[in-house]
Amino acid sequence: MIKVGIIGGTGYTGVELLRLLVQHPEVALRTITSRGDAGALVSDMFPSLRGRVDLKFEDPATADLAGCDVVFFATPNGVAMQQAPELLDAGVRVIDLAADFRITDIAEWEKWYGMAHACPDWVAKAVYGLPEVNRQKIRDARLIANPGCYPTAVQLGFMPLVEAGVIDVSHLVADAKSGVSGAGRKAETHILFAEASDNFKAYGVAGHRHLPEIRQGLSLMAGGSVGLTFVPHLTPLIRGIHATLYGRITKEIDFQALFESRYAAEPFVDVMPPKSHPETRSVRSANTCRIAVHRPQGGDTLVILSVIDNLVKGAAGQAVQNMNIMFGCEETTGLWQLPVLP
Amino acid sequence: MIKVGIIGGTGYTGVELLRLLVQHPEVALRTITSRGDAGALVSDMFPSLRGRVDLKFEDPATADLAGCDVVFFATPNGVAMQQAPELLDAGVRVIDLAADFRITDIAEWEKWYGMAHACPDWVAKAVYGLPEVNRQKIRDARLIANPGCYPTAVQLGFMPLVEAGVIDVSHLVADAKSGVSGAGRKAETHILFAEASDNFKAYGVAGHRHLPEIRQGLSLMAGGSVGLTFVPHLTPLIRGIHATLYGRITKEIDFQALFESRYAAEPFVDVMPPKSHPETRSVRSANTCRIAVHRPQGGDTLVILSVIDNLVKGAAGQAVQNMNIMFGCEETTGLWQLPVLP
Amino acid sequence: MIKVGIIGGTGYTGVELLRLLVQHPEVALRTITSRGDAGALVSDMFPSLRGRVDLKFEDPATADLAGCDVVFFATPNGVAMQQAPELLDAGVRVIDLAADFRITDIAEWEKWYGMAHACPDWVAKAVYGLPEVNRQKIRDARLIANPGCYPTAVQLGFMPLVEAGVIDVSHLVADAKSGVSGAGRKAETHILFAEASDNFKAYGVAGHRHLPEIRQGLSLMAGGSVGLTFVPHLTPLIRGIHATLYGRITKEIDFQALFESRYAAEPFVDVMPPKSHPETRSVRSANTCRIAVHRPQGGDTLVILSVIDNLVKGAAGQAVQNMNIMFGCEETTGLWQLPVLP
Amino acid sequence: MIKVGIIGGTGYTGVELLRLLVQHPEVALRTITSRGDAGALVSDMFPSLRGRVDLKFEDPATADLAGCDVVFFATPNGVAMQQAPELLDAGVRVIDLAADFRITDIAEWEKWYGMAHACPDWVAKAVYGLPEVNRQKIRDARLIANPGCYPTAVQLGFMPLVEAGVIDVSHLVADAKSGVSGAGRKAETHILFAEASDNFKAYGVAGHRHLPEIRQGLSLMAGGSVGLTFVPHLTPLIRGIHATLYGRITKEIDFQALFESRYAAEPFVDVMPPKSHPETRSVRSANTCRIAVHRPQGGDTLVILSVIDNLVKGAAGQAVQNMNIMFGCEETTGLWQLPVLP
Repeated sequence: MIKVGIIGGTGYTGVELLRLLVQHPEVALRTITSRGDAGALVSDMFPSLRGRVDLKFEDPATADLAGCDVVFFATPNGVAMQQAPELLDAGVRVIDLAADFRITDIAEWEKWYGMAHACPDWVAKAVYGLPEVNRQKIRDARLIANPGCYPTAVQLGFMPLVEAGVIDVSHLVADAKSGVSGAGRKAETHILFAEASDNFKAYGVAGHRHLPEIRQGLSLMAGGSVGLTFVPHLTPLIRGIHATLYGRITKEIDFQALFESRYAAEPFVDVMPPKSHPETRSVRSANTCRIAVHRPQGGDTLVILSVIDNLVKGAAGQAVQNMNIMFGCEETTGLWQLPVLP
Repeated sequence: MIKVGIIGGTGYTGVELLRLLVQHPEVALRTITSRGDAGALVSDMFPSLRGRVDLKFEDPATADLAGCDVVFFATPNGVAMQQAPELLDAGVRVIDLAADFRITDIAEWEKWYGMAHACPDWVAKAVYGLPEVNRQKIRDARLIANPGCYPTAVQLGFMPLVEAGVIDVSHLVADAKSGVSGAGRKAETHILFAEASDNFKAYGVAGHRHLPEIRQGLSLMAGGSVGLTFVPHLTPLIRGIHATLYGRITKEIDFQALFESRYAAEPFVDVMPPKSHPETRSVRSANTCRIAVHRPQGGDTLVILSVIDNLVKGAAGQAVQNMNIMFGCEETTGLWQLPVLP
Repeated sequence: MIKVGIIGGTGYTGVELLRLLVQHPEVALRTITSRGDAGALVSDMFPSLRGRVDLKFEDPATADLAGCDVVFFATPNGVAMQQAPELLDAGVRVIDLAADFRITDIAEWEKWYGMAHACPDWVAKAVYGLPEVNRQKIRDARLIANPGCYPTAVQLGFMPLVEAGVIDVSHLVADAKSGVSGAGRKAETHILFAEASDNFKAYGVAGHRHLPEIRQGLSLMAGGSVGLTFVPHLTPLIRGIHATLYGRITKEIDFQALFESRYAAEPFVDVMPPKSHPETRSVRSANTCRIAVHRPQGGDTLVILSVIDNLVKGAAGQAVQNMNIMFGCEETTGLWQLPVLP
Repeated sequence: MIKVGIIGGTGYTGVELLRLLVQHPEVALRTITSRGDAGALVSDMFPSLRGRVDLKFEDPATADLAGCDVVFFATPNGVAMQQAPELLDAGVRVIDLAADFRITDIAEWEKWYGMAHACPDWVAKAVYGLPEVNRQKIRDARLIANPGCYPTAVQLGFMPLVEAGVIDVSHLVADAKSGVSGAGRKAETHILFAEASDNFKAYGVAGHRHLPEIRQGLSLMAGGSVGLTFVPHLTPLIRGIHATLYGRITKEIDFQALFESRYAAEPFVDVMPPKSHPETRSVRSANTCRIAVHRPQGGDTLVILSVIDNLVKGAAGQAVQNMNIMFGCEETTGLWQLPVLP
């Protein structure tokens, strides 16, 4: 059994990690911490776990994190870079669901996240946890930078095209829509039900923190810098990301076959048949990314549709997938539950 | 392995049965039928099942239903009473998720359902599949009348009080609220998104078909006739029923202890601590009924709050629970997934 | 023109007052205050008002409130009782949309609202602003206690029966459901979209602040104390209250005719035909209360369905209705817009 | 007073026309027809109109349509082209809210709409009713082709750029999201609440009927053919369209100033300040289009955000705006109600 700890379990990625790890047959959940709610029963905050999770939130100062095989950070940006090094030095493997180790260019990271980085050396050693790209490196990684939700949907959607060099990477467009849980479980006015329900808006058009992360990933695939216009939107779903991706064709091939081939061996990427329109609910609560490839009216612009559940393949599920790879489990272990539809 | 067939798999209870049965470790799903969609891939209608369910809908006339150990009817009212007898006679056990075998008074059934009953003799032999009441009879039943969604939430909420004879059963009030999936996957105007979203209404106040079913169940518990005012409402959820139950106290006891004691051994009924308010989402996609007991201002009226997922404990999950009991499986097998929250 | 001021314009009742008053042909909106947002354009906070409202939020300390004919308090409980007396003494008429002047029993108010009352003498002089009850007194009132949202829906639903003395007032049940805007525009976790969407729950079953207000109103109608069980619920609507009311018949009369007669002259109460089920959306954004009268299965329990828009007839619209009465306008002036459906 | 008739009043554009026309001070609503519901009270179908609209649906065969000054067709595609000519010949002016007269290329229309056109000659005489483009022609038009919802949002968003010739019109991208009322009040499974709620998907990527309409409009503005990739999406709103538009800059100018100047005199187009993100709810139930202009990271791609209420500026409101122009009313008459927010 893998001994697991969770730091910061009171947000949506925290409770989703709990849901997945409690049901994981090879995991022994040792501790879950919360500075603010130490001592409270986890199931008092999340009654969905009543009768199944007896843990209390523990104070991170006293919790036995060093005795874990792996610790998940489900904390705000800036926490893991402070606390992970001590655990790493103690031999604990770490999966950070926040952004602290995602961007290898420290100056770029500091610009977008507005703080000085506390441990640039671990950034260099971290592995970006997108299994479809880095499966081999993940196996032996000590520190995983779990990808952001938008970056997962957008990169998986563009990847076959960018790797194959068949679209113009200097002018990619990613029009992405996210459910409201993506904003986290924070008491903020703009994500109140009465504000976000029956409403649709773009946000962060001038620049969203996931832009440099996506650009970095796509540049690695392209073997050179890419140009990307990324527009995120808030849509009245609880869960779900839908990325609509536009790229201009530079080389003719069978694009459907390209996608099917690239993802043939991937357990969590489903390339749908031609003319499909993936729905976010078709992946609700599951670790799957569904993709459809379109070429409207046979023109020179490809449209790729890519959907994930932002809390699963976009966060906690992908983190567990990474853990499975790191500890030699079957990759689908604990992640094979069917989507909940309707 | 239990060989299973599903008749009528294109509605919400059908797809929910699929979700649960596909993940059930002791089930071999043999056939799923649909007259209208025979030949179509199940996963084309419900893309959430892509890659996991390879079945096609079969024509009920040619499907090997008689070779199954148990057949679930997820059909409209009036179908099972026509088709089940032949299967029953062939030794197949049957679980009907519709209402055909729920009401033992045939005249009463015919009044509420507006048709003549095709096989009254099987009504007499059917077992009402509420495990918390009829577990022993279910074990050996050949035909299960799976309870309705409202009846499950209301009966589980009132049961300890009615059995104990501590409230006035002549004037019970059940104010119940259902998510829209309870209306089925039918192309009807009033359940369109643009009609049912951001809207709340009562319906069927003059008389809803679940009224005689609830009244029958409570009367059996009370050992005599009961008086019930039942008002259902449509609320903009996909899944979930919340029953708010009112009863006047006739005998003082410790009501919280009564509930805790009555359900102590029940794996799927959770009596919450005093002052709790169960949320429908706390049971979303799970087979659990959560109940809270209130006595506002110490007055003479008890208020019971009871929530279920109408598609799970209110339909497909309870049907699988019944199957587990019938076939000697652990009762929680295939039903132990955690609720999806948020 | 009526010179109008609004104190506390950044919540939902504030912006709804703005919507109604800006379009009111006999109103000159002089000032709207906000301590926290003084100096900001109202239309920057509420872009729905862009191009139509040029006002900035003013500091309440410097705003010319004393120059107004009437001032609306759209503030949290406890503010108006501090600030209204000075305005009242200056001859300004005041309409308080909060609860400071609703309960005439000061000790009761202090118990439910958890603070000492700052001006009990004005409570005695205030008029409870339910026009269907107090129209004559409202005309000359200097201070209006605008009713709460639940109290409006519940009182209008029970009123004809209680006034006529035809139901048992010792055991009334009010099962009420509210949209989330009723909780205000406050940054609190439980009303986030990802918490309140696709979810339904009761709250405050042990005792909600609107209970004493409703009980006071019904007692005045009954000419004696009443017993009431009041259970509020949160439902995923932006706007709307649906009250389902239960009362046991003590005297036979034509209940439908009773309601039609009682409300025949009321412009904002619509008694629907028998067997109707009013929908909250049928009053969305309008100052109307729609009511239907049911007697299920001809039994001894009446079921009354009463719907309002909590922000309009349950708050800002009723406040404007009171203003119209106070200043001799046609009662429907500025309130005659049709509901927005769908 | 303008004598008005409505043909086909049982859909969402029909009831929205009713809401606007009933409150229009210069309109006398003479008749509203429905073949299927003739004889029924309009307010029985739409209880939001109770007490305000006494009309019954009339049979189109007997209704006095020829006595009207103007008749609105709120009918499915293909009806107006059959029935409008007779009215036009009788001197009645006609506003068609469907697509029959929008596309001037008859072959193109027949390809996208899958039927033969019944009166090509009237297509040539019809005026496309986008007031911001064709105000002068609308004044004297006998027949108005009221624009589609997506075409309104997309054309108003691109128009200043295309007219000014400052973006590459050969590769425009319009990523548009619509509320579910845009699909009409039709009993179809995919727009049920339980299907469309908590779900997001693209549709019609291969080709949507609004594509040729948008392309035609933009081509006229550009003075030559344009290339457009148009991807519509269904999002869980009742009302609202959000168009996110992408165009590559070919000539540097002050884009914000361009938009402000182009729409300075337009009562129903609001160009927001730089860095704004218009929300669909900020135009809910109003005839306004709000637009924001972005140039992310100072790159060569412009992002325009354009929102409307699909039932108002995208259908009924624009139709009334056209009527106002045709009959010499102030353009904002009857259309000046503030958006309903929240």
